Amino acid sequence: MSGDINRVVRLKSRPVGMVKREDFDIVDEPVAEPGDGEFRVKVDYVSLDPAMRGWMSAGKSYVPPVGIGETMRSFSVGLVEASNHPGFKVGDAVAGLLGVQTHAISNGERCYKVDPAQAPLERWIGGLGMPGQTAYFGLLEVGEPKEGETVVVSAASGAVGSLVGQIARIKGCRAVGIAGGPEKCRYVVEELGFDACIDYKAGNLADDLKAACPDGIDVYFENVGGEILDAVLARMNLFGRIAVCGLISAYNSTEPVPGPYNFRSVLVNRLRVRGFIVFDFADRIPEAVRHLGEWAAAGKLKMREDVRDGGVDAFPDVLNLLYTGGNLGKLVLKL
Amino acid sequence: MSGDINRVVRLKSRPVGMVKREDFDIVDEPVAEPGDGEFRVKVDYVSLDPAMRGWMSAGKSYVPPVGIGETMRSFSVGLVEASNHPGFKVGDAVAGLLGVQTHAISNGERCYKVDPAQAPLERWIGGLGMPGQTAYFGLLEVGEPKEGETVVVSAASGAVGSLVGQIARIKGCRAVGIAGGPEKCRYVVEELGFDACIDYKAGNLADDLKAACPDGIDVYFENVGGEILDAVLARMNLFGRIAVCGLISAYNSTEPVPGPYNFRSVLVNRLRVRGFIVFDFADRIPEAVRHLGEWAAAGKLKMREDVRDGGVDAFPDVLNLLYTGGNLGKLVLKL
Repeated sequence: MSGDINRVVRLKSRPVGMVKREDFDIVDEPVAEPGDGEFRVKVDYVSLDPAMRGWMSAGKSYVPPVGIGETMRSFSVGLVEASNHPGFKVGDAVAGLLGVQTHAISNGERCYKVDPAQAPLERWIGGLGMPGQTAYFGLLEVGEPKEGETVVVSAASGAVGSLVGQIARIKGCRAVGIAGGPEKCRYVVEELGFDACIDYKAGNLADDLKAACPDGIDVYFENVGGEILDAVLARMNLFGRIAVCGLISAYNSTEPVPGPYNFRSVLVNRLRVRGFIVFDFADRIPEAVRHLGEWAAAGKLKMREDVRDGGVDAFPDVLNLLYTGGNLGKLVLKL
Repeated sequence: MSGDINRVVRLKSRPVGMVKREDFDIVDEPVAEPGDGEFRVKVDYVSLDPAMRGWMSAGKSYVPPVGIGETMRSFSVGLVEASNHPGFKVGDAVAGLLGVQTHAISNGERCYKVDPAQAPLERWIGGLGMPGQTAYFGLLEVGEPKEGETVVVSAASGAVGSLVGQIARIKGCRAVGIAGGPEKCRYVVEELGFDACIDYKAGNLADDLKAACPDGIDVYFENVGGEILDAVLARMNLFGRIAVCGLISAYNSTEPVPGPYNFRSVLVNRLRVRGFIVFDFADRIPEAVRHLGEWAAAGKLKMREDVRDGGVDAFPDVLNLLYTGGNLGKLVLKL
């Protein structure tokens, strides 16, 4: 075992704009042995999430940035292959903050066991993992949709957005997605069952939104920001709610980004705008996983992973797909 | 009585930028007699409120715009001088939506009797009227301040802001104002008892805010928007609340106004941003007036009116003082 190699992605410099291969050191090093209270995971899948770009920047954010020279942070999933930890034994499937590397040492913090019999490993960092939990709490606890209301979600074909619209439908709402390009829009409506999906790249966002939301918008689940947020603000109903989950359109910006021009809608329509991250609901994760699993088992909640090959070396290029709209479904890197 | 003259301000055209005298017809017409279920008020004081500028614009807002040719909407207060309404008799003091005119006919809608023995007439459109109720509900219900937290309010010397900071102090919070110029800042700290007040015109808003709020900002009561909102967003604490009461910095703008550059703080700090108007709490107005009156009687809540002479003819010029920072305390026009 000690002759094995850990291939690991370390942050070399803070990226400017989109990430580049040169921002990372991708190196081989000897696999480490777990110390007391630790275990080692052979990582099978790495989750690629929009928040990663923020983790690489030095600015204040909701978690500390990854330090220069440190292993790139990620949610990953794999099997325990060595353990000195009483709670994790060899063969256990484990998901958590294990980093972009082939072999991770953990003391169990921010890790939890998952059940490969209930769903394939990659789904535990997708629809049943952080993205699923984010959709669940963000829509239901922050958005507070009521039956018959109209729910709009941006990045609707993505890991979180695809679930938000489906959960909205389960709750008796009209679900309208916003996505980029006809293929994604077709997927969102025909395969995921949204009532409508608007192609923001088609150039008629305001009019298309009006047509798709004849009764206005009651709940907006925000993943994107920028022009899309502005268009939505112009259609929000009185006492509407906006759950701010992400603002991906600005994550790679090198200039200050103006906020929404229609910010005044917050006042005029007495909106409630609330930022959240899934960790704010950490003590209720089992509830979310149980509901998500039940809906999935009943065929009401379709989950789709977009699994990319290439191992850890492909990390920078695959990550960038998130910001160029190159993925369809939960983006996952297979090691 | 029927020989009397009503001098009235009618909206002639929708203003572009700041209002001008030419945007109004200010005319004499015979005083009308009240019909069945109506009464007539001889108006003594007209309230000048930031929202008035929005009422003159054709765009969607929380109340319909004033129509061209219609009497300019305002909160006013005066004494009933003729009545065919069972609820209002001659001599009653009445406040409400009576318009910018010397003699107003009303059916009682959006009007209520006030007690001149408890407070002078002009205070019933000030600290005990809509501005006072706005401060009360906006801070306590939307801002939800907790003892020991830091509350910041913009337009701190104004009708609403001056009360927000004082109520924050009553609730055991650190109260920090933002106002324009040393005289207003001195007034806010020395006469109203705020812990600190920042002069945004001094050019060090970000640094001054940092110094005045060493523990960050938990609650922000927003009257202004623009650069001030941006500076505050940069200092908000985790799970902070922003009560959006007004965005006066943009009311006279003729170009689209960008939203806050630091909008991302909503996500990073998981803020709750909520727009409100006092009418959202209409059923609880007696509660607010009771508390405001008690605090004022106990000397805990200082109220100050900035009463201007000149009659209805002075309306356009006096109104503009709100947008140029020319008033100190609740701006009122005496007829």
